[in-house]
This record gives sequence, C-alpha cells and structure tokens, in this order.
Amino acid sequence: MAFSKSEIGRVAIIGASGYGGLQLVKLIDEHPNFDISYLAGEKSAGKSWNANNPFINIDVDQQIKSTNTDEISHISDYAILSLPNGLSSQITPLLLDKGVKVIDLSADYRFRSLDKWKDVYTSEASKYPRFDYELCEEAVYGFPEEFTNEIFNSRLIACPGCYPTSCLSVLIPFLKQGLIESEGIIIDAKSGTSGGGRNPSTNLLLSECSESIKPYGVIGHRHTAEIENISSQFAGHDVNLQFTPHLVPMVRGILSTVYARLRDPGLTAEDCKIVLEAFYKNHKFIKILPVGVYPATKWVKNTNKVMISVEVDKRNGRIVLMSVIDNLLKGQAGQAVQNLNIIHGLEQDVGLPKITFYP
Amino acid sequence: MAFSKSEIGRVAIIGASGYGGLQLVKLIDEHPNFDISYLAGEKSAGKSWNANNPFINIDVDQQIKSTNTDEISHISDYAILSLPNGLSSQITPLLLDKGVKVIDLSADYRFRSLDKWKDVYTSEASKYPRFDYELCEEAVYGFPEEFTNEIFNSRLIACPGCYPTSCLSVLIPFLKQGLIESEGIIIDAKSGTSGGGRNPSTNLLLSECSESIKPYGVIGHRHTAEIENISSQFAGHDVNLQFTPHLVPMVRGILSTVYARLRDPGLTAEDCKIVLEAFYKNHKFIKILPVGVYPATKWVKNTNKVMISVEVDKRNGRIVLMSVIDNLLKGQAGQAVQNLNIIHGLEQDVGLPKITFYP
Amino acid sequence: MAFSKSEIGRVAIIGASGYGGLQLVKLIDEHPNFDISYLAGEKSAGKSWNANNPFINIDVDQQIKSTNTDEISHISDYAILSLPNGLSSQITPLLLDKGVKVIDLSADYRFRSLDKWKDVYTSEASKYPRFDYELCEEAVYGFPEEFTNEIFNSRLIACPGCYPTSCLSVLIPFLKQGLIESEGIIIDAKSGTSGGGRNPSTNLLLSECSESIKPYGVIGHRHTAEIENISSQFAGHDVNLQFTPHLVPMVRGILSTVYARLRDPGLTAEDCKIVLEAFYKNHKFIKILPVGVYPATKWVKNTNKVMISVEVDKRNGRIVLMSVIDNLLKGQAGQAVQNLNIIHGLEQDVGLPKITFYP
Amino acid sequence: MAFSKSEIGRVAIIGASGYGGLQLVKLIDEHPNFDISYLAGEKSAGKSWNANNPFINIDVDQQIKSTNTDEISHISDYAILSLPNGLSSQITPLLLDKGVKVIDLSADYRFRSLDKWKDVYTSEASKYPRFDYELCEEAVYGFPEEFTNEIFNSRLIACPGCYPTSCLSVLIPFLKQGLIESEGIIIDAKSGTSGGGRNPSTNLLLSECSESIKPYGVIGHRHTAEIENISSQFAGHDVNLQFTPHLVPMVRGILSTVYARLRDPGLTAEDCKIVLEAFYKNHKFIKILPVGVYPATKWVKNTNKVMISVEVDKRNGRIVLMSVIDNLLKGQAGQAVQNLNIIHGLEQDVGLPKITFYP
Repeated sequence: MAFSKSEIGRVAIIGASGYGGLQLVKLIDEHPNFDISYLAGEKSAGKSWNANNPFINIDVDQQIKSTNTDEISHISDYAILSLPNGLSSQITPLLLDKGVKVIDLSADYRFRSLDKWKDVYTSEASKYPRFDYELCEEAVYGFPEEFTNEIFNSRLIACPGCYPTSCLSVLIPFLKQGLIESEGIIIDAKSGTSGGGRNPSTNLLLSECSESIKPYGVIGHRHTAEIENISSQFAGHDVNLQFTPHLVPMVRGILSTVYARLRDPGLTAEDCKIVLEAFYKNHKFIKILPVGVYPATKWVKNTNKVMISVEVDKRNGRIVLMSVIDNLLKGQAGQAVQNLNIIHGLEQDVGLPKITFYP
Repeated sequence: MAFSKSEIGRVAIIGASGYGGLQLVKLIDEHPNFDISYLAGEKSAGKSWNANNPFINIDVDQQIKSTNTDEISHISDYAILSLPNGLSSQITPLLLDKGVKVIDLSADYRFRSLDKWKDVYTSEASKYPRFDYELCEEAVYGFPEEFTNEIFNSRLIACPGCYPTSCLSVLIPFLKQGLIESEGIIIDAKSGTSGGGRNPSTNLLLSECSESIKPYGVIGHRHTAEIENISSQFAGHDVNLQFTPHLVPMVRGILSTVYARLRDPGLTAEDCKIVLEAFYKNHKFIKILPVGVYPATKWVKNTNKVMISVEVDKRNGRIVLMSVIDNLLKGQAGQAVQNLNIIHGLEQDVGLPKITFYP
Repeated sequence: MAFSKSEIGRVAIIGASGYGGLQLVKLIDEHPNFDISYLAGEKSAGKSWNANNPFINIDVDQQIKSTNTDEISHISDYAILSLPNGLSSQITPLLLDKGVKVIDLSADYRFRSLDKWKDVYTSEASKYPRFDYELCEEAVYGFPEEFTNEIFNSRLIACPGCYPTSCLSVLIPFLKQGLIESEGIIIDAKSGTSGGGRNPSTNLLLSECSESIKPYGVIGHRHTAEIENISSQFAGHDVNLQFTPHLVPMVRGILSTVYARLRDPGLTAEDCKIVLEAFYKNHKFIKILPVGVYPATKWVKNTNKVMISVEVDKRNGRIVLMSVIDNLLKGQAGQAVQNLNIIHGLEQDVGLPKITFYP
Repeated sequence: MAFSKSEIGRVAIIGASGYGGLQLVKLIDEHPNFDISYLAGEKSAGKSWNANNPFINIDVDQQIKSTNTDEISHISDYAILSLPNGLSSQITPLLLDKGVKVIDLSADYRFRSLDKWKDVYTSEASKYPRFDYELCEEAVYGFPEEFTNEIFNSRLIACPGCYPTSCLSVLIPFLKQGLIESEGIIIDAKSGTSGGGRNPSTNLLLSECSESIKPYGVIGHRHTAEIENISSQFAGHDVNLQFTPHLVPMVRGILSTVYARLRDPGLTAEDCKIVLEAFYKNHKFIKILPVGVYPATKWVKNTNKVMISVEVDKRNGRIVLMSVIDNLLKGQAGQAVQNLNIIHGLEQDVGLPKITFYP
C-alpha cells in the first residue's frame, strides 16, 4: 500500500500524559501529513487537552478519551502507543486485527522471541499474560536508518529504546562490517532525567538530582539485553557487552561513550570517521563530526538528530565512539514520527523540527 | 512597497556570533520567504559558518565576512544588526542610504531623543560620536503587537530589549486604558544567563551562577529608561517605576512579575484577564492564561510567545501581572523575524517555531 | 535554669525524613553540646538511620523509632519537631507536660491566636482538632536575633517559616524604627526546590523545574499571614503587604527582594546600611554588605547566615532590600539549633557550620 | 620532626584566587591547628581578602600580597601552592631552600621523572625552563591513604590531580593485589565545571554547559599519564589504560566509572567489597557502600570523602568500580589539608568538614 503525499494519515495517540506522549501529540499536531484522530489517556480521560496542558497546547483542542479500540479503528489509520511495558501487548493485537497499523514505543515487541522478553521483563510478564509469539516475530525493530524497507512494509513497528538508539547508531556500522571485536565492548551512557518519566518519584526531584551525577542499573539494566540482541544480529554472533547508565542533572539528552577494540589497530580516527560517513551517507538525521570535535547533548536537543564523533587511541588500538541524541525525539517521539513517515510513504524528515536552538 | 508572498527577501545578518545572532541565522536559514544574503562577523570573518558552529549548522554553508556595506547593499533587501550598543549607529545610516532596510537589535534607536540615549548609554556615547537625531526620531519601536502599521511602513526598526518586551506586554494594556496608577509600579524581573551574552565572564560561569539567584543592576539598570519611555508614551504622562533584574540559573527565559495598583479596586482578576484578552485578541503570539494558572518560563522556551497571567489582591486593590518570554526569541531574534515578516508583507508568524517542546 | 557548657543536652528529633529533618540530625550529631536521644520517623520506623540514609550518615548509628512521648521524655531534655502542620500540635502538649522543651518547625505555634491559625491553615484545622489556645499564647516566635531573652526563658519555640525569616530580617529594623511606610510593601521572594520538601510530586521533578522559573501561591500564600503578623507587631499597627513566592531551579536558597517607601526620602543607601549595621551589630549570623554589593544565594549556602544589601532610588524615595538565606539552615534546621543553643545557655553559633564553600 | 598538637603551624597560601585556593583559605582559616601566615595572589595583590571575596570571608581579614619567598619563609612553616602548572616549579625550590615545607597542588612534582613531565606538559615545559630532576625524585605523591609515612617525612608533597584521586582510589587496591588485569582498563570519568577553573571561558558559561553533557580531551588528557604512572607503580609493570573525562552540568563533584576484568572471574561483588573494606579499614575518608548502593556525587559534596561501590558482571567477569569525590576538597584543597595534617603530626581529619549537607 502506498499513500500519496497529499493524503492525510489519521493517527491515534494512546498514552499521551508522559513526556514522550506530550511530545508526540505536538509533533503530530503540527505535521503537514497527519491529523490526530484520537487522544487516549486513562488518567485524564474526559478532560480537554489544552486545559490539561497549558504548556503545550494544540491548534484544535481535543478531548482526551479512554482507549476504545473499536472507536479508534473507525477513524484511524495508525496508532502510536506510548504505554507502560506489558500493557501495550494487550492492546496492540486488537488494533492490528481491526486494520490499524501500530507504532509501539514500549519494549513489548523489541525482541523476536517472546520468551526472551519474558526473561528480561519478568515483572511485566507476570502481570500481563502474553501468547503473541507470532506478533513478536512479525514486528519490525524501528531503527529507521537500518530497516527502512521492512518498516515501510510493516504493520507493527517496535520503536527502539532511547539508550539502544544512541548506542546502536555507533555500534552497527562497526559490528556489521566486522571492524571491531565483539568481545569487551563497554558502553558508558548518560541520560537526562526526562528518561525517567513524568511520574513523581523522590529520586527524580530537582533537589535530589541537581548538582549530582550517579550510576544506576549498573549490571543488568534491561536495555542491555536489547542492545545485545540487535548487536548480535548485526555481528552475526552473540555479543555480550557492558552497559552502565548514569543520571545527569539535565532534562533532555543522552550521550553514549562506547569503547571497543579495533580488529585492525592500524585504522585511524580519520579512517573510522570515513566508515561512518559512508555508512550513513543517505541518512539526514545522522551527522558525523570532524575528528577532534566532540558532541554535547545540547547540540542535538530538540532535534531528531544523532551526532557522532570517533577517536582511536593509537597506543592500544582502542576506538572511542561518542553519540548524542535527544532522548524524547530521536530516542522516542521523533523516531516514532520518522517511522510513521516511512510507512506513509513520506520523506523521513517531514514534520520533524528544522529550526534548532542554541544554547 | 508591498512584496508578494512568493518573493524571497534577501537578508544580511550583521553580528552573528552572539546568542541572538546564532538564533537569527538559523531562523532566517529555515524561513520559507527569506534567504541569508550576507553573514557578517568580525571575529570569525573568513571562516565557514558550519565549521565554526557545528552545533547550529545551516543548510547551505556560507563564509562569514567582514562588514562591507556596499557589498551588502547590492545583494540585500534587509539587514538585521546584532551588534554592541553604539556600534550599530555607525553602520545603520550607511545601510539606509544605500536602500537597505534595517532591523536593529541594539538600543541605539529605541529612544526618539538621541540626547536621552546619550544620557542612558553614556559610555557608548563617549566611544561612538552620534549626530543622527533625525534617524532616532524616524525609527519605529519594534513592538509588533503595538506598532504593526508603523513597522510595515518603516525602513528602520529598533527592536525592544528583552526585559522591556516582557514588561511592556503587560503594562501597555493597563496604562493605555488608564486602569492602573502610574505611580508605584514595581517590576521584579528574572532572566536566564543567555541574556548576559556569550562573551566569557567569570560571573556567568556555570560554577558561579548555578545553584544561585542574585539581583543585579538594582537601581538604574538601563532597561529602566526604555521601559519608562514607552510606558510614558502609553500613559500619556511621565511614568517613574522600579525595575530590578535578577540572574536565574537557567539558560533561556525571562519572567517579569509586575506590581501595580488598580485605579478601580473593584476589578477582579477575571475582569483584568478579559481586559488582556480583548487587547490582544488578534495577536497570535500572546496567550492569556486562565486565572490561577501561572506561567513558567519553560512554557514559552524555544517559542516566540508571551504568556501572561493576572491576579488581584482584593484586600488592597493591587494587581500582580506575570509575563514570560524566551529572551532569545520574543526577546530578540524571534521578534526581529516577526518585524521582518511585517515589513515583507507576510503573516507575523511565518518561519517562527511551531513545534514546541516540553519539558 | 542555666546549663553549664559542659553539660550535654539530650535531643529527640521527631520527623527526620524530610530535608529539614535530615539536616537537623546531622547538625545535632556533630554538635559538641548535644546528643541525639531519640530519632522518630513513622515511615522508616524500625530501620537503621545509616542504612536508610547512606548519603548523610551519623557517627553512631541509631534505630529510627515510632513516636513514643513517654519514652522520649525519659531520655530527652528537648524535642525538635519537624512534622507536617497540624500534626505537631497533637504531640507538643504531651511532650511539654512531661517536661520536655519543644522546638517546633511547623507553623502550629507561630500565631499567638489559635483562631488566626485556623483561618490560615484551614485544611489542617479541619483535620486536627485544636484547643491549645494558651499554648499558642505562650509560645515564643523563634527569631533569635529579635527574641533572645524570650527564647532563653521559654519551653516552646515556634521556629519561623523560611520565607518569613528571610523577609523579616530586613523588614523588622525599618518597621520597628518607623523608617518605612507600612503601606505598599512588596516582597518578591525566590526559593530553591528543597523548600517544597522531599515528598515526590510532578511539579518538583528536575524535568519540570530545571531551566525554568515560575511564580506560585501568588495571592494568599500562607506565609503572607505570618509575615504580616510579625511585621504588625513591630510596626505597632496592622501591616498589609504583598508577598509573591517563585520557584527557582536550584536546590537550596531563598532571596527576598523587598520594596518599600522611605518615610524620609532624604535617606541614602549608605544611611540605610548604617541602620542595619547598628540594628544587627551583636548578631554574628547577619552580615550587611557594602552598598552596591548584592548577595547571591550561593554566598550563604550551607551556612546559617543572612546576607543583606540595601539600595535607595533617589528619584522616588523607594528602598530596595535584598536578603539571602539557606532555607534549610537559617530557614529551618540551623535556626532550630540556634534557638536550642540559646535555651541551653550556649553561644548562638556553637555547632553551626563555620567552614564555608564556594562555589 | 614532630609537632605537638598544640603548636600552631603557620601556613602561606600562594595562589588564592582560583576555586581550590578559595577553599584552601577558608579551610586553613577555620583549622584549629593552623594560621594563615601569608596570602599571595598576583591579580589581587594589595587588596583586602574580605573586600575581594564577600562570598567567603575569613575571621581576621588579611591583605593579599605578591609572592615574596623571603618574607614568606620568615613567617611560615608551610606553603601551599595553588598555581598554574609550570609556575609552581619556579617557586618551590626557593621555598624549600629557605626551610619552608611545600604542598604543591600543581602537576609539577607528580612525576618522579622530570623528562616524563616535560613530555606530558609540553607547553608548560617550553615556557618554564626546569632542571630540578632531584626534586622530582624527592617529592612524595600526596595520596594520603597510600603514602602516609612518606608524607610525614617529606618536605615536598605533590598533591594528586582531581581525576587521579578519584580513579586511583579504586584501582590501587585491585592492582596492588593483582586482582584485576592491567590490560583493558577503562575509566569513564565525569566532572563538574569547577574543575575547569575560575578563569572566564566561553565553554564554561552556564549558557553553554547547562542542560548538556559532553566528552573532552578524549585521547591523551594529561591525567591519563598521571593515572598510568601511579597505576604502574602499584601493578609492578606498565599499565596502559583508557581515560575519558566528561563535563557535567554541575559545580562540584567527580564520578569515575572504572571497568576492568577480574583475574579470578569467580569473585563476587560482595568479595570485591570486602577487598576494598580491608584495604581501607583504617582510612576515615574512604567509605565502601553496600553492594547495590551506587554513589551520587552529591553524597560527598562539601566533604573530603571518597565513596566507592563495586559490581561484578558474572556473565563476563568484568568488575565495575564507581568512585565519587568532591573535586575541590578530596580532589584538591581538602587533600592538601589532609597532607598538611599528616606532616604536622595531627589526625588526618582535623579541620576538615564534619557537618554534611543533603540535598
């Protein structure tokens, strides 16, 4: 199925009260090719969007509703789900059955193997009974720079996690081409607090986070499995790596500093930069920086970009890859829109922010 | 002179290394009706814009040049000047003489009386000899919500300062209609550090500003004169008020909390809200909040909006007006583009950010 | 009753899980003249303090207990209550009856008139039935610079609120001496987020507060009544003033910018500085800055100090007073210790931080 | 030579305008066993300390002077140098010759080999001619937990850099006992902006740093050589490691996340914690956290502590060590005082902050 560009896609947004959801609503609201057909949010069902969110109003106000998949399917071509892990899997099959294509922001369809998902998301697995093995196999991992065609032809996109988006953007080119050893990869990742969501919790209070940096989820953060899963797919064999996230006193942004060993220690940083440029040459959102210029998360804030820099330590053949994204855009809502653009037959960057802001 | 909407205006940007300049370059770069014809910056003349500013690249790279008014005039319809106070007055007359319309972000043409300017900007006045009395009288104060027609017909726009934009947006409606006493007005204003500019200075280091708030320029800040000047114009008599700016540990944003006394103490907050709504009913960028909803600067960050809230203390007839802007957009580069849109015969909001971001 | 300096006072701390409580525990723990006799906290009763608070350990670990006033009274000379408003009044009488002197951080005893308290704290009044009219009259308002003798002789100290401490420190000298008009006083106050407490709430998340400033409680914040109450006492007549608090993206600190009109417009800033110096000449914690030097909250962070600066606008006879404190020390736990020192017959600054930190 | 505890040491502080210097002045000012004998600072020579630094006053004001080593030697037992790299080596020999013991905060004496220093600090080496090979060999590396005796007997202490202090505190125990492979160690370090000093520079402005994290000095940061140098000493062979610093939007604090491979992959996190506890059992400033509790820099802010946590990934035998310090205290001024205490025959923690603050 191919849409003409002038055709307006009708998009239901389910789960709009979190930070990703808020951003998504605004992106679709301003998108020239999509309309918001349905705004579902349990907590604020019955309320007006604009009264509820004076800080991010939409052009034509809408009422927030409970999730009614029948009603959604009558008026929507697509649904974007911004729901807690596990809950998504209870709604997605219903929507698909009714002919609505689903872009899912949860982790529910990121693993081809449902059993693997149950291993990693144990508490969610015990709360939500799942038997949708086939859907897990059918779903496409929504990393648009890698899987453009699969996304275009799919009816179920599992958008990557924020950390995986950031790490995989630098790992895939080198793993796919066998340029780095898959043993001993270390990812030291840093995220702003909006990654922790909008539900109140003491450890995300400004009083606690401000003027402080700390590691969390040190061994076994659930994104480890997701990163290893996709890395293994590109490496052609199992990859076991170290992933340590840190909480940084800022709102938006992820920086991943990735350490690996080059198979050919003769490669220079300049060589590696060329590898990256060649790999991403047709991808507008990915920007490779000159050697010696290191990205700050601020440089991609409020954009859907990935900025990448690479260095090589000649003394020991180690490569250091740095990648920054805005966790709520390329790491969440922006990437969802990028995927939606692909499915709808549009250029990938339509409706995504073009004006940038500094500082 | 009226431009057809399809005609592309050619815009020279003079002084592009400060925060206002950076933002301006990006706004014009992405604007559908304008092209950047010339990028002038003394410090980085000869360098490529994109190499120099990896954090805010433009679509088609340009070389930064020294200011050559002849060359500018051959290829530009408009020049936006983002220069230090005083310096602007040395270049503006040359550009006007050559038929280039000028939008000036400095304070040089904000006072009808050059002598008043010399009183307020004494050090600049001693550095730059000025005799352009007539230009000062000719220039239009670029508050677009108030002076739309004058701006449309003008060749020299003096854009308001960031603080004045914020304060005047709430004072003008009440002063013009005689609803508040002009005696005893107090403005307690709070700004992020980007208002202090991009030149390195110890007192703007993160180490100094972070985790701290402080007043500065407590009596006699130069924006006092500008605010009083325009306030007096609308009140119809001299207004003498108190203005105290504070430095807040954030990058962008100004909040002005304005205290005055109602002439009719029977007015309620709801009444005053209606006054504001009526006053600004045709102005897209100004948003009046419901009574009891107070604006945070974050709500307008990265937009050209003004958000306003009003309260009345029934006990004593005092009105409290709150107004937030993004100091680099509505307070600087965004307002310049809004003015440029007016002169060019466009809708005021063309090319200004529509997608908003939260948090 | 006078204690010899060598005698160790036994202090029960009731309510130790909030920010004020945490700070209090550490101050008493390190105090040379006091021991912690009892640590009461309902939420964490039964747990070890040090295991529960790895970020602020005490020298000799203690178990946190439920509040048992009998047990407390057997082993304590003093109790410091850091409890929600209203709850404090349910425990204080029991402790006093058993001979324990009480330093209360809540608002429960800040008004001589219990009826006034019920007016201001309506929701608490409906939740906690109170008839302790006499205790309200007996209690001493614990502003140590003003009421040293009363505090020394009292068994119940109502510590001032954080905002009132900051504002009153500059208002009292001028109101008491009749130097300013009591009409038209405006207090524009700014606080860090720790003033909002440690209970999780969306509006105190770093994601929400960071990079933003906003007003709250614009008319009728409950500290207005407290400030007016004490101001009236010193002015000798009813004072009705404007108080607007703002939330600043920082952890600790309050800045109050106070505007009033001098009765004698001939007074200069230098004169007013001398007034303040004379008034506070024997008070170590209050520091008057030179005219033209304005205090940042960072300058008093982690100290029990008040730093004050004063300006006068000669054009209109208005005085601008600026006062900064650390809201958790001079605004809460530090002031409690200062009061405890007085009662125990010690120098006021014993056990309070002497080492300061910058930046 | 051993001092009796009651004897007051006279301390000259040379270079007091940077953040380390400011903190040092206050620590010595409040120290019960030391007096400030001389305050040297070129930029502010002739001025009063207290007038110059209203934010960190000392009890008895002093005049800031130019550095006169003769004058210093007459009235000082010790000198603490907080000077730029290279400059320190021009003054240290003069002071030592005159019998003044030197505690140096620069990098000038951190390498036993002056030639190594010249390799690493090339620009300083070309600016300041140095031939003090013997002094470099004589100097003791002032890591007090490791070299207590050497420090006690030395007249020249080279205080470690801030990053090395943080990293070495976790590397030394494991390298010394051969528990980790010395190949493939990766240090991902994060620092607040005060580590960048107090001189104004655009890249340390709040507007630039706030809401952003970025890597810098990615390969070849000069602390790499220092960390490798000391690591090699404890490992007994050359250690070549990866060190990447990052700038975090906060004022104070360093977090080092250190990755290495256990020689015995059977060791658990609990085992490794016991190793650390045993190693540091007599060291008050080093606190080992329970397994699963990860330190935030805020937990050690304004203290001289190191807080350490350890995890082991059983899947691959990798150890993850986390260490936090306050870069201006344990990473600079506090460590200098700790060293001074040792030389003077005092307990290591005398005069260092005991009251802690949270949040």
